[in-house]
Amino acid sequence: MSQPLQPPAVSPAFAEGERDTVYRVIRARRDVRRGFLPEPLPDPLLTRLLRAAHDAPSVGLMQPSRFIVIRSLAIRRQVHSAFQHANQQALAKYQGERHDQYAALKLEGILEAPQNLCILCDAENEQGHGLGRQTMPQTAVYSTVCAVQNLWLAARAEGVGVGWVSILSPDALRTILSIPAHITPVAYLCLGYVDSFGDEPELERVGWERRAPLENVVFEETYTSREKP
Amino acid sequence: MSQPLQPPAVSPAFAEGERDTVYRVIRARRDVRRGFLPEPLPDPLLTRLLRAAHDAPSVGLMQPSRFIVIRSLAIRRQVHSAFQHANQQALAKYQGERHDQYAALKLEGILEAPQNLCILCDAENEQGHGLGRQTMPQTAVYSTVCAVQNLWLAARAEGVGVGWVSILSPDALRTILSIPAHITPVAYLCLGYVDSFGDEPELERVGWERRAPLENVVFEETYTSREKP
Repeated sequence: MSQPLQPPAVSPAFAEGERDTVYRVIRARRDVRRGFLPEPLPDPLLTRLLRAAHDAPSVGLMQPSRFIVIRSLAIRRQVHSAFQHANQQALAKYQGERHDQYAALKLEGILEAPQNLCILCDAENEQGHGLGRQTMPQTAVYSTVCAVQNLWLAARAEGVGVGWVSILSPDALRTILSIPAHITPVAYLCLGYVDSFGDEPELERVGWERRAPLENVVFEETYTSREKP
Repeated sequence: MSQPLQPPAVSPAFAEGERDTVYRVIRARRDVRRGFLPEPLPDPLLTRLLRAAHDAPSVGLMQPSRFIVIRSLAIRRQVHSAFQHANQQALAKYQGERHDQYAALKLEGILEAPQNLCILCDAENEQGHGLGRQTMPQTAVYSTVCAVQNLWLAARAEGVGVGWVSILSPDALRTILSIPAHITPVAYLCLGYVDSFGDEPELERVGWERRAPLENVVFEETYTSREKP
């Protein structure tokens, strides 16, 4: 049987122009660390972004994601100090040219972005009655990451920059933001208007790394290593 | 200083209609377990979906995600057996009415969907030179989950159903799909055309669980429990 060239006659697909928009927002999304504008995001916009995150898939419909909106400069300063501490430790792992290159990187916009957002996972939440996470309990945290990505794409469509700061100790975040021990800080984001988005990832632009071609990472039927021998 | 009602004069936002499209695809995305059509997805469409996944953010631009496209019925039958095994164990944890309700749920479309897709994380991949994941090494796996969500949204725009099967032992997947020990199976997806998408999540439709309101999960400045006392 030959492959059909057309989708089924009854198709719930979006219109072609709408599909292009979705692909375009996916390609245009960037991790933003510089260029945040001081204007705060209007509350209705922030609510739209949070709703997009909340609409993410979750294992067993458990909706484990929790969101802390941080505008206080005092709190952001504490988080920034925690970043600086973790970043000094990270820097110490590099040597030679990589060390100097790392030291010159701008890796966060905690103080410039008027809003920070800490996204958490409450994996002990009983909503969903445990469905789907007995074999892979980590799917609770995965659900929260899906929420992050929904918000990231919605923000790009709104012209709002998002930067994910992963150089932060979860325990430091717990202390600063009064997060209980059983709740997992998954993502710490800087959010704000920007006047432009880069055409390429920041780490590519500054020569830290280059993107790999798609064909390097796709396999048929079973896994086959394509690493260099 | 009062909050501005308008975004900055120079704004890289998408047009209003385009933003609406992005929000609409986010809201219309469903976890699909039933109703897959037998027509295979054309290769160019599948490539568009995989490229959307590959365009996801990744910590340090490490791009750790790997994709196994599975069409072989023999392999899907093995995965389906592994699902049945894990699902029997899951069922045994429920009692009474929940047990009967769980037993009646349709939780996967492994054999009906003509394509399955296993999405993996190669966290030992040296691309990115370790940037951003010394403090939170789990961000490698989180990057792969972002890829899953990109693909899920692109698929919805294309009218393609996606169901995430989490009731599968990662070790069973490693054996069936020849995945090395250092590579983490993150998501096992069923992909295919469907003739419709539900208006609400399947688990809500069948009465397993209901969605929580957004205001229950948003906090200001620090975490505050809103659980029932």
